[in-house]
Amino acid sequence: MEETFAPFQGIKNDIDGRLTCYKQDWTGGFRAGFRILAPTTYIFFASAIPVISFGEQLDRNTEGALTAVQTLASTAICGIIHSLIGGQPLLILGVAEPTVLMYTFMYNFAKQRPELGHNLFLAWSGWVCVWTAALLFLLAILGACSIINRFTRVAGELFGLLIAMLFMQQAIRGLVDEFRIPERANLKSVEFIPSWRFANGMFALVLAFGLLLTGLKSRKARSWRYGSGWIRSLIADYGVPLMVLVWTAVSYAPGASVPKGIPRRLFSPNPWSPGAYQNWTVVKDMLDVPVLFIFGAFVPATMIAVLYYFDHSVASQLAQQKEFNLRKPSSFHYDLLLLGFLTLLCGLLGIPPSNGVIPQSPMHTKSLATLKHQLLRNRLVESARESMRMNSSLGQLYGNMQEAYQQMQTPLIHQAPSERVIILHEQKLQQQQGLKELKESTVELASSLGRMDAPVDESVFDVEKEIDHLLPVEVKEQRVTNLLQSCMVGGCVAAMPFLKLIPTSVLWGYFAFMAIESLPGNQFWERILLLFTAPTRRFKVLEDYHASFVETVPFKTIATFTVFQTSYLLVCFGLTWVPIAGLLFPLMIMLLVPVRQYILPKFFKGVHLQDLDAAEYEEVPAVPFNYPQEGEFGARSSVADAGEVLDEVMTRSRGEIRRTSSSRVTSTTGTPARGDAMSPGLSLKAYSPRINELRAMHSPTGPSSLGK
Amino acid sequence: MEETFAPFQGIKNDIDGRLTCYKQDWTGGFRAGFRILAPTTYIFFASAIPVISFGEQLDRNTEGALTAVQTLASTAICGIIHSLIGGQPLLILGVAEPTVLMYTFMYNFAKQRPELGHNLFLAWSGWVCVWTAALLFLLAILGACSIINRFTRVAGELFGLLIAMLFMQQAIRGLVDEFRIPERANLKSVEFIPSWRFANGMFALVLAFGLLLTGLKSRKARSWRYGSGWIRSLIADYGVPLMVLVWTAVSYAPGASVPKGIPRRLFSPNPWSPGAYQNWTVVKDMLDVPVLFIFGAFVPATMIAVLYYFDHSVASQLAQQKEFNLRKPSSFHYDLLLLGFLTLLCGLLGIPPSNGVIPQSPMHTKSLATLKHQLLRNRLVESARESMRMNSSLGQLYGNMQEAYQQMQTPLIHQAPSERVIILHEQKLQQQQGLKELKESTVELASSLGRMDAPVDESVFDVEKEIDHLLPVEVKEQRVTNLLQSCMVGGCVAAMPFLKLIPTSVLWGYFAFMAIESLPGNQFWERILLLFTAPTRRFKVLEDYHASFVETVPFKTIATFTVFQTSYLLVCFGLTWVPIAGLLFPLMIMLLVPVRQYILPKFFKGVHLQDLDAAEYEEVPAVPFNYPQEGEFGARSSVADAGEVLDEVMTRSRGEIRRTSSSRVTSTTGTPARGDAMSPGLSLKAYSPRINELRAMHSPTGPSSLGK
Repeated sequence: MEETFAPFQGIKNDIDGRLTCYKQDWTGGFRAGFRILAPTTYIFFASAIPVISFGEQLDRNTEGALTAVQTLASTAICGIIHSLIGGQPLLILGVAEPTVLMYTFMYNFAKQRPELGHNLFLAWSGWVCVWTAALLFLLAILGACSIINRFTRVAGELFGLLIAMLFMQQAIRGLVDEFRIPERANLKSVEFIPSWRFANGMFALVLAFGLLLTGLKSRKARSWRYGSGWIRSLIADYGVPLMVLVWTAVSYAPGASVPKGIPRRLFSPNPWSPGAYQNWTVVKDMLDVPVLFIFGAFVPATMIAVLYYFDHSVASQLAQQKEFNLRKPSSFHYDLLLLGFLTLLCGLLGIPPSNGVIPQSPMHTKSLATLKHQLLRNRLVESARESMRMNSSLGQLYGNMQEAYQQMQTPLIHQAPSERVIILHEQKLQQQQGLKELKESTVELASSLGRMDAPVDESVFDVEKEIDHLLPVEVKEQRVTNLLQSCMVGGCVAAMPFLKLIPTSVLWGYFAFMAIESLPGNQFWERILLLFTAPTRRFKVLEDYHASFVETVPFKTIATFTVFQTSYLLVCFGLTWVPIAGLLFPLMIMLLVPVRQYILPKFFKGVHLQDLDAAEYEEVPAVPFNYPQEGEFGARSSVADAGEVLDEVMTRSRGEIRRTSSSRVTSTTGTPARGDAMSPGLSLKAYSPRINELRAMHSPTGPSSLGK
Repeated sequence: MEETFAPFQGIKNDIDGRLTCYKQDWTGGFRAGFRILAPTTYIFFASAIPVISFGEQLDRNTEGALTAVQTLASTAICGIIHSLIGGQPLLILGVAEPTVLMYTFMYNFAKQRPELGHNLFLAWSGWVCVWTAALLFLLAILGACSIINRFTRVAGELFGLLIAMLFMQQAIRGLVDEFRIPERANLKSVEFIPSWRFANGMFALVLAFGLLLTGLKSRKARSWRYGSGWIRSLIADYGVPLMVLVWTAVSYAPGASVPKGIPRRLFSPNPWSPGAYQNWTVVKDMLDVPVLFIFGAFVPATMIAVLYYFDHSVASQLAQQKEFNLRKPSSFHYDLLLLGFLTLLCGLLGIPPSNGVIPQSPMHTKSLATLKHQLLRNRLVESARESMRMNSSLGQLYGNMQEAYQQMQTPLIHQAPSERVIILHEQKLQQQQGLKELKESTVELASSLGRMDAPVDESVFDVEKEIDHLLPVEVKEQRVTNLLQSCMVGGCVAAMPFLKLIPTSVLWGYFAFMAIESLPGNQFWERILLLFTAPTRRFKVLEDYHASFVETVPFKTIATFTVFQTSYLLVCFGLTWVPIAGLLFPLMIMLLVPVRQYILPKFFKGVHLQDLDAAEYEEVPAVPFNYPQEGEFGARSSVADAGEVLDEVMTRSRGEIRRTSSSRVTSTTGTPARGDAMSPGLSLKAYSPRINELRAMHSPTGPSSLGK
């Protein structure tokens, strides 16, 4: 993305970019068939459960002015509109914790003013939304999102980890509260006598940990050894919703032997009761708000605008990280503009607005990468099996597979800025290389068995396994999942009587699950783990797929950098505990942009910073690369964009998707890292033969294709 | 072991064999230093916890005539005597479930007879022990243990799995009972009102699962990536006792917010109360028993004798499985004789007798194998580091390591039967081969780096890792752990006030832990898992270390055999539910001996049976092997004992110790398994290049040294 501060330019670019692929966004999604339901339900649960929980929180804090019905409605309406006419359909919208905190603050303020009170609270917050929308329009038009370029991995991952901490904190708080008497409760109920409270707390521990552990296990089902393939797929795809059902069922197991309130379940208003409709007509009360307060609404509006600008863009950015190899363009400016409209709409409807959420948005992308992997894999396996049935030779088989692979590629011709064309080009090369390695390994296998010309069969070519190993990370970019999950969230309003069956403890387990699910792939988290890894075991990190910095940056530098980042994280976390100012912790994270740009380079070497936190604006250094110009690598890339190419070649996926080992055995300085860049405990040389051996076995883009 | 039914011959052989290594049993143990405490505490907990729990059961069933004090005392006394003058010191003695059931039955019988009643119960059971001892003497003298040879893997592993099922059943029953009002309880106590009972049950679930999960995790600590080496070792060695402490501490966390009886804790009598001493003087009451009942005691005595003969021998056999590569001789006959004396002693003291227990005995051997591995490893690493400090070349380094290795070997010259000499000889060859491979891989590495003559350093020779991979399975065979753990069990009697702090739910978690710990290495269990493995994933079994049958026996045969064995197991399990006859389920398992010998060969091919269940008496088939006579393999073994050698070469360890991949790529028929021996889903050919590759990396005795 270029940095453009010319008014409307960013929005125009975004719209142009997304329009070219708009039709494909739908056709591609529908063509995936029923498999699209797996990521849909996965993200629906990740989206709906926190929204319900935040709705309950809002219900308590606003004395029923806003409930889970309103948060669900906002999430559904904004989600549907965004999936239909939004820019980046990978972005998931929802009512988030900061919104809840702001609305709580606004309610407490309004309640104390006789001019507003409980009755005019929603009308006044409507004005807040109007001002917020105006500010967001301004930010979008003036291209404020351009600086998202400067918002590097170090900041994004810190934010991601902070959100994970907040989710985990919520889970722990929720569980602790299960041992306490809830607010608003009838103290005389039998379930609040000490014995039943203790029983409730213990039951909550069992249910929450049960959901957490089985949920985490089920996500790994695809690599289980037991059960047939479709069962494993089913569990991996739908395991988490299934576990919510299972543990809800378990919560009913004690039957009549416990009082009705044990375990505690979701408290939600009946969406069909008359009171639940008050908010929808709030627009007619808005002119009753005194003028002073209309203008006063500007103050909270600035805070919300900053918050939304930040959250929305970062959520979008984290959903589009480089390792996902996305093909379609980003849309920060236009999405911020649309967010302005959505905020306005929500304000006028008297519901809390939604914005882009973490960790749901990156979870969405991850689940779509898994989907695409499954689709590609099935198609190629089918093609290979077909060829075997036809008694094809190995050459024919490979040809057929390549053809099938090409058919699966998004036929996207668009006029994006020149860099993107290069990226796309490199991606293509890289993907073809994946298939090429597949061919090579198969040919080698066949010739070693002396069966080069004979028809291929499973004994020579172990289809499923080989393909699984060599497919590149790609994402099924489309709008269908987002639309469907938003509709399902809307359906939750109608299904409220069923949702009330879910124990709150299952909810807390789910919060913990989401926090843990968001960790893998976060390099910051992986560096923290590396700090705790015993020096003698660090070679194990190298044997796994790993980020390039592990090899190119000295351990001491990694440690210093990580300790700095962790301290910064803890400061931000501490800030969230401060009552109202704490809401502005995003400012603290935005402060990382100048820190990264001006202060960090004084303490760390440029090359190291680049490996630890590649920033786009740094990617073409002044000194030309003296990268070895040999083999196909030198031939196909100019000196100038070697940095870019290297970065792209180093594809890494997140979560359950296969990770590709870094191919950057040489650092971006162009010379292999020497002794000084190596801590004694992590000497590359000591392990390199084994590493190469492992690479040769696993890596599609390993040194065998690059190092030569 | 030869089959000898000549009176006293077996006992004499055993004593001769063990006497030669008696001194080394002690010196070897003491030389291991403080590290010996790791297996000692591990096995102490495995021994004491069930004994305490069985003691509580006995306490309830005999209305306090026998308590945990007596079961602990019996276990301690018998354990100390056995470790001092017993034959096989790997065998762990303890009061087991069958003894408890027999004593319960005897108590109920005695109570109903006015001639005996509660008062003469212990005196009468003293007579039962006298008869039992007499029968055991007879069995020992006549060499009944000789038929233990015919007691093959199929029966031993079935018994092991049955015991695991019984332990798991105990854990589940115990947890279910935590929700119920215990017998003998004061129904008016506050902790038995429904709400506290439910709270207690839920708390019990948390504690039991907490102990189980953390206990299982801690056993794997050695392979963790995090924490320094000594912390990992500490956790792996003492993690389970530590977790018992931790979860006991957690059980006190609710503090005063719960009544005193929650969670339920061990109920044990004060060992210093006057009532606890009644039993010790029971011998003076024995002549008060009416003569009719003295002779009638013969009936239960036969049942106990059969039970003990079986349990004791099988526990001993499972502690000495071939894959442990034991160096010292077995001692079935003499140990049975000693058991007779111990039973007599216990009977006269009025305490229930102990016998060899499963799974503790094999757990003991396993933990000693881990100890030996650690000791060998440390010594070799030290030697290698020393050499590096001296700037030795690779040749010198290897020489030094070999010397260190030889010093660690048990200097055992004994006059065992000729087969054992051959075995020892082969073992030696095999172990040297392990080191040889170490040398080869190192040399290869060095020459590939062009540093053959230069001084070695860590970059060429990654000491810890290489050594870890190539050390053979050996066991620290000595008497010190057994003596120490028995003394500690005795100390439990004094420590009863502390033991009472442990919640019963932690006990149930520990039962489940023991059941699960006994599974790995049990081929029967692994075959059951294989049945549930998806055909497309079976190659993963081949990639791991695995038993030879996976490659040589067709899947259908494996499946049929396993289904047969499982049905048999379920029948035995069902039998244990039958009130008194159920005690004789060992007869059912003994029935497997003729079934295995005469019936199974009619349904399965001999070679397959041999791979699935190698029986010693089958190991020299009538048809001479046409095993390829090439390389060093042919040179160093005659045709006749090739089967034996192959079996020995195929070393497999259990549990956390590294497993050595089977090197039997050719079946014992001498020809490589062909198409007919391969199920479609498990074609060796399809995966063989990868398998060989993996083997070459991991296996000390892989095809690279044998197949050539």
